[in-house]
Amino acid sequence: MRLVYLDNAATTQVCRAAADKALEMMTVNYGNPSSLHRMGASAEQAMETARKQVSKLLGCSPETLFFTSGGTESNNLAVFGAALAKQRAGRHIVTTAVEHSSVLESVNELERQGCEVTRLVPDKNGVIEPEHVAEACRSDTVLVSIMYVNNEIGIHFPIDRIVSSVRRVASGTLIHCDAVQAAGKMPLSAERIDIDLMSASAHKLHGPKGCGALYIKKGTRILPRVFGGGHERGIRAGTEPVPLVSAFGVAAEELPPVEEQNRLYHSLRQRLHEGVERLRGVVWISPKAAVPYIVNIAAPGIKSETMLHFLAQHDVYVSSGSACSKGKKSHVLTALGLPDSLVDSALRVSFSHTNTVEDIDRFLEVLEQGLKVLVRR
Amino acid sequence: MRLVYLDNAATTQVCRAAADKALEMMTVNYGNPSSLHRMGASAEQAMETARKQVSKLLGCSPETLFFTSGGTESNNLAVFGAALAKQRAGRHIVTTAVEHSSVLESVNELERQGCEVTRLVPDKNGVIEPEHVAEACRSDTVLVSIMYVNNEIGIHFPIDRIVSSVRRVASGTLIHCDAVQAAGKMPLSAERIDIDLMSASAHKLHGPKGCGALYIKKGTRILPRVFGGGHERGIRAGTEPVPLVSAFGVAAEELPPVEEQNRLYHSLRQRLHEGVERLRGVVWISPKAAVPYIVNIAAPGIKSETMLHFLAQHDVYVSSGSACSKGKKSHVLTALGLPDSLVDSALRVSFSHTNTVEDIDRFLEVLEQGLKVLVRR
Repeated sequence: MRLVYLDNAATTQVCRAAADKALEMMTVNYGNPSSLHRMGASAEQAMETARKQVSKLLGCSPETLFFTSGGTESNNLAVFGAALAKQRAGRHIVTTAVEHSSVLESVNELERQGCEVTRLVPDKNGVIEPEHVAEACRSDTVLVSIMYVNNEIGIHFPIDRIVSSVRRVASGTLIHCDAVQAAGKMPLSAERIDIDLMSASAHKLHGPKGCGALYIKKGTRILPRVFGGGHERGIRAGTEPVPLVSAFGVAAEELPPVEEQNRLYHSLRQRLHEGVERLRGVVWISPKAAVPYIVNIAAPGIKSETMLHFLAQHDVYVSSGSACSKGKKSHVLTALGLPDSLVDSALRVSFSHTNTVEDIDRFLEVLEQGLKVLVRR
Repeated sequence: MRLVYLDNAATTQVCRAAADKALEMMTVNYGNPSSLHRMGASAEQAMETARKQVSKLLGCSPETLFFTSGGTESNNLAVFGAALAKQRAGRHIVTTAVEHSSVLESVNELERQGCEVTRLVPDKNGVIEPEHVAEACRSDTVLVSIMYVNNEIGIHFPIDRIVSSVRRVASGTLIHCDAVQAAGKMPLSAERIDIDLMSASAHKLHGPKGCGALYIKKGTRILPRVFGGGHERGIRAGTEPVPLVSAFGVAAEELPPVEEQNRLYHSLRQRLHEGVERLRGVVWISPKAAVPYIVNIAAPGIKSETMLHFLAQHDVYVSSGSACSKGKKSHVLTALGLPDSLVDSALRVSFSHTNTVEDIDRFLEVLEQGLKVLVRR
């Protein structure tokens, strides 16, 4: 039975070239970048090659890119690092109600520590206007953290215009963007849009789990969260996971051009949309303006988990909401005001450049079987 | 030219079986453990297998073991997590002056935040008596953090007796041990000795970089440092790096029994000692009671880095002090009161079970050439 993997917003298969690179750096070129000898220098060189490769994804200079253990650590470092570096200037944070849990929970923790938080809620079309972000800023706002692409329903925010709006009213505020679901799939220009901080993760773009990156604008100062040997220029201590970082770099290079990916995703979404239209009892949740590679649908009356398991039995893999929430009710769908009947039955279908129209057809085929077989409650 | 790698305290070559496991989990069994479908369950199963394998190294139950991104993160989590969880009970910390930078700098940061710190200095034989640790404890001591084996000269502290002594005088104090240079090479019994927290790292024992573990005693409460999706039972958020964790497990299983390793290390050290005795101008620094697999020597008058480079030109790899300090003057050798002439010329030779007597002979041969060729200053 052919495996149909449509859960690429949860994680992706590591591409062959990246996996081979990781293997090489584990078994042949295995030095510690901090070692002063030749094997150390060679490992350090591999780090810098990867830094160049990954910085292209984010649209930044290599020296502004710092490697971490993943998207969650990048988001934690950005949020805590910025808020704590700026705490004398103020303790107010602006974010949205639909951020990934790693931003959400970091902000919640800062709130417990005495910060004030404004959480913007997108309208029913998934829109947050840049002016609304600017209006939420106060003289004591030290951090704005807004994601590029939402991981559950694919809505995306106009980060470039948000940065301009915020800069106009609050020039000292640091601005962070969780770009984990955008990096590799959309052209990003961290430097050009003048943002302070931007996060990415390797395993969402066919790189390995356990590796992420954080862009820090030249001159922007944030406090580190992990202390030790001064790795990553003091921003993040710990022996660099060279095999992962190198594989991240290779995975970034191996991605097809974003325009090519975009064409594919639009055609896959179109196929999915036509299929869903034909089926009775399936609702399309993602707004039209969402990115084409993350689609949320629902089959009201059939619990997400029930349908997931049915699909998986046929080797078709999608997810309910976010993988990280592990079955909890989606805070994203709830924030968008969707009724429980949709929240409880939501299915996320997420694409990668490795998917084909046949994958969509197979998904629709098994989904249709599920709709017939599974009892609605 | 045969590569002679004697820098195993800096990092190790990932063993073939572990690398193969990582490759499989990157390219075949690549699900996200948090995904509710079958591929997620399979990834989660791999995590639990590895948890069992690694917990044997530390002498603890699998459910008390938590995976992190490495030794540095484990140490940070233990030190900050314990001190912050206990901050209402007091703000005094007891540690040593010879800890790894990831403990040292974490404690320094807590000191900047208002904690008081007592740093014990070993005597010239590298000894810290358990009674001295107990005497340093006060009614407001919330954390004792002492390493198992020092990464630069191999001195080791009697952790079991230290725990007993501290428990007698300060029953509410949390006790942490950085066992990064001990795990896999010494029998550890975290549960039996009744310690609260113990750190380990995969890449010091032929597992991959980017993966570590922290033992947390049942009932011991520490605060998390990374917030997000509640992974690792709320202790450490972030998508689990399944390929690394699985490889860590396999690497742990692949290690020869510690007694067998110990016999090898003693014979290698003996060979090295005889060789050094024959050479003029080389001083043996490590005390006799040090572990046999980390040896510090010095060639006064020849800067460590100069000799390192000479050795590396002949494909022989050792290090000056700690890899993580990257050329800075060793805080360990300085704390032990060694003169600058030795500190500046120190060489660390560190073994793994893959080393042979021929490696030692080759090292001695090239070292002897270096002593002749390099100009003493």
